[in-house]
Amino acid sequence: MIKAYAAKEQGGKLEPFEYDPGELSATQVEIAVEYCGICHSDLSMLNNDWDMTSYPFVPGHEVAGSIIQVGADVTTLKVGDAVGLGWHSGYCEVCSSCESGDKNLCATAESTIVGRHGGFADKVRANFDSVVKLPEGLDMESAGPLFCGGVTVFNPLVQYDVKATDKVAVIGIGGLGHIALQFLNAWGCEVTAFTSSESKKSAALAMGAHHTINSQDEAEITAAAGSFDIILSTVNVKLDWNLYLQALKPKGRLHFLGATLEPLDIGVFGLIMGQKSISGTAVGSPSTIEKMLDFANQHKVKPIIEKFKFDQVNEALDHLKSGKAKYRIVLEH
Amino acid sequence: MIKAYAAKEQGGKLEPFEYDPGELSATQVEIAVEYCGICHSDLSMLNNDWDMTSYPFVPGHEVAGSIIQVGADVTTLKVGDAVGLGWHSGYCEVCSSCESGDKNLCATAESTIVGRHGGFADKVRANFDSVVKLPEGLDMESAGPLFCGGVTVFNPLVQYDVKATDKVAVIGIGGLGHIALQFLNAWGCEVTAFTSSESKKSAALAMGAHHTINSQDEAEITAAAGSFDIILSTVNVKLDWNLYLQALKPKGRLHFLGATLEPLDIGVFGLIMGQKSISGTAVGSPSTIEKMLDFANQHKVKPIIEKFKFDQVNEALDHLKSGKAKYRIVLEH
Repeated sequence: MIKAYAAKEQGGKLEPFEYDPGELSATQVEIAVEYCGICHSDLSMLNNDWDMTSYPFVPGHEVAGSIIQVGADVTTLKVGDAVGLGWHSGYCEVCSSCESGDKNLCATAESTIVGRHGGFADKVRANFDSVVKLPEGLDMESAGPLFCGGVTVFNPLVQYDVKATDKVAVIGIGGLGHIALQFLNAWGCEVTAFTSSESKKSAALAMGAHHTINSQDEAEITAAAGSFDIILSTVNVKLDWNLYLQALKPKGRLHFLGATLEPLDIGVFGLIMGQKSISGTAVGSPSTIEKMLDFANQHKVKPIIEKFKFDQVNEALDHLKSGKAKYRIVLEH
Repeated sequence: MIKAYAAKEQGGKLEPFEYDPGELSATQVEIAVEYCGICHSDLSMLNNDWDMTSYPFVPGHEVAGSIIQVGADVTTLKVGDAVGLGWHSGYCEVCSSCESGDKNLCATAESTIVGRHGGFADKVRANFDSVVKLPEGLDMESAGPLFCGGVTVFNPLVQYDVKATDKVAVIGIGGLGHIALQFLNAWGCEVTAFTSSESKKSAALAMGAHHTINSQDEAEITAAAGSFDIILSTVNVKLDWNLYLQALKPKGRLHFLGATLEPLDIGVFGLIMGQKSISGTAVGSPSTIEKMLDFANQHKVKPIIEKFKFDQVNEALDHLKSGKAKYRIVLEH
């Protein structure tokens, strides 16, 4: 039996919940969960915001732990391996996205908390192709958030070939943004943080930003016209996107990691005149996760976390909802 | 004296107009205009839609002709050369866009019909760095439209590294779209035309499309979900862009060559889920123009034109406004 925490209904409190996972399939592994991060998408799923939650619902897709069982056909992982598991828990391996290395874009990928039970538990299972070993020396207690939040901010650097000579800005210094600043600084870029709160300014500088711009001050943003090769937006509120488009250099990219629900109302002229792009990505492929873990280990990039015990999971979720988490929350046994 | 056709006021009729261009500068050349295409942006400028027209206004930025005078410092062009001139008539050559080959993104580039007189004339001048020689064998009477319309549709193939294995679609089969279909077919792509009129369907197939989709039929567009690597929009009306986003493959790009004035109202989720991009470009660099001319010559890509005499310029403009031009209009002496 697996001992987990589940919500019985939409938006419900999490309660202890046991389930029998059945026999381990030949290509699965079973992970003893040591830590599991809480991500905003756990909340969205708990509330069925995306209309794809089934109840009882066990959240958790930022798992760090150790392998305790491997399926008969698994040869690349073994019992005792320190590993992590993120948003995806298996891939089809044969679609054109999988075949070209973009497994995270696989249309039939299995998601760790969609139609199955996630990592708020003592154990969790996943297909071997979605489980990535932690590099030696990587701090396990803060590793979980790298598997969703971390790879989400790292992936665009790989996808869009960001260079050390690029000027990069990050909008929003929270659960995603604070990791983005660290990665970008280590990547060699000149880094600017757009932040709405004066209190986060010094924090942003400490995390790797070289400059800050007050995102409430239209004049400050206007003054930055033509400055950035890429702007990563990590917020989920509507901003004046055309103003941020102006802050891009010619050929610049405004890239979304946070899903605002309101449409973007982008002016076409602003795209055409400077050959600019708008785009979005979510998480990353296992190969990108491996690169990211290695890079984080090398450069001491670490999510800043607050820890809660698993039996405090509801308090932890309330803390996340309050918007006061600094900056990622991790559950531990 | 240069004998031109100018509007004296916003939206006015063109009338014969003479001006003294003064002494040729050391870096300029003078072109005897043999043909000049009419582009939608000539109309926009005539009407001061972009608030940057000065009157008397001489339109014309799709020039084909022969050099009749070169400035003292010009060594790369000589009298008698068959050349063309497009939207830009000179570049700063020292900004970072110019230095990296993206001269068309130079913020201080001189535009052929902005603050100076264009190609609806017997002669026109331009800085040597903006004038491109016609390759031997290229038909001069249809060459003009390549210098604006042609490079506009060709540039994204270069900028976004479109491959022969890509599935590409074109929205709108008019002045831009009919050239795009030819280029894309010659590029080796599988080409689909989105067109609103049944009558243009067979024309699109004749120009190089392999398939057509009725852009008025939502079900047909929906059925094409996940089909295209890149969609080039050449229209200037608002369509259901989120529906076209769905027609893209993962990592696909919806690219705008036509400037709709209404904002795009794009959903962020639609970008994030499939790692999709939205972008826009205008014209292209001289280097891209050279590549395009060579490619057009090699593959017999030719704008389909209707010819008017220069003294019929007002009739020609009315024909363009009517939306019935098939597909580009060229003025000849």
